[in-house]
Amino acid sequence: MTRFQVHSQLHNDCHGVGKLALCHLLLHKNAAVPWFILVPETDAHDLLDLPVKLRTAAMNEAAVVADFVKRILHCPKTNFAAIGNVVPQLHLHVVGRKPGDPCWSAPVWGHLTDGSAYSDARLKEITSLLVQHCALNLLE
Amino acid sequence: MTRFQVHSQLHNDCHGVGKLALCHLLLHKNAAVPWFILVPETDAHDLLDLPVKLRTAAMNEAAVVADFVKRILHCPKTNFAAIGNVVPQLHLHVVGRKPGDPCWSAPVWGHLTDGSAYSDARLKEITSLLVQHCALNLLE
Repeated sequence: MTRFQVHSQLHNDCHGVGKLALCHLLLHKNAAVPWFILVPETDAHDLLDLPVKLRTAAMNEAAVVADFVKRILHCPKTNFAAIGNVVPQLHLHVVGRKPGDPCWSAPVWGHLTDGSAYSDARLKEITSLLVQHCALNLLE
Repeated sequence: MTRFQVHSQLHNDCHGVGKLALCHLLLHKNAAVPWFILVPETDAHDLLDLPVKLRTAAMNEAAVVADFVKRILHCPKTNFAAIGNVVPQLHLHVVGRKPGDPCWSAPVWGHLTDGSAYSDARLKEITSLLVQHCALNLLE
């Protein structure tokens, strides 16, 4: 069996932070808003094409990340999407939003301009919080 | 109990086509791409805040609409999102996409310019197909 690979474009755009039970978890390099991307191990391209059990499992993991974004990163709102017009590999966006953030009230896709980057220290801190609150498994 | 009301902005932007078991179903007036909006009867604002059972039911209905968009309206791809930065009432977007459509490969939100409108005949035809394929209940 070929080992599942996260798409190279997602790797270019994001920090790979680890693995949840089902999904690979990435954090977009643009630090202007907390923007997580979940990649479930599947060949399906569209979220709504997934079998119910797998889709529900993926949504449950997205909900855990959304709860993290709200409670730990203090965003009052999350945006959720599965688009995939550019990167065909199924990936789920969970984006922390707050009024007044750098592209409020527009969605981030195609609207968020380049922002600040995460420092190594901040990335390490977020990863550690994800291990604690979301049962994240670190990358080998 | 106050009767659930779909947000006035959604009514302004969309045709109300009917009701699924859980969600009110609307069709965006911009006919450039098939753009459905599902409004579940809940006070929650974010999809990922819904209790699992309710979220799964809403996602199942979104999947039925996505299947309709693919099989009956012949779109090879669907985009899915729950954003709600402008209209706070929870609503789910299911958008049929195909390479070469009027804003491919950008997401529709903030990128799709005004397009053609549905004729009364086409709206009636789509509604009838939704009754047939998605168990849509017509509005009273």
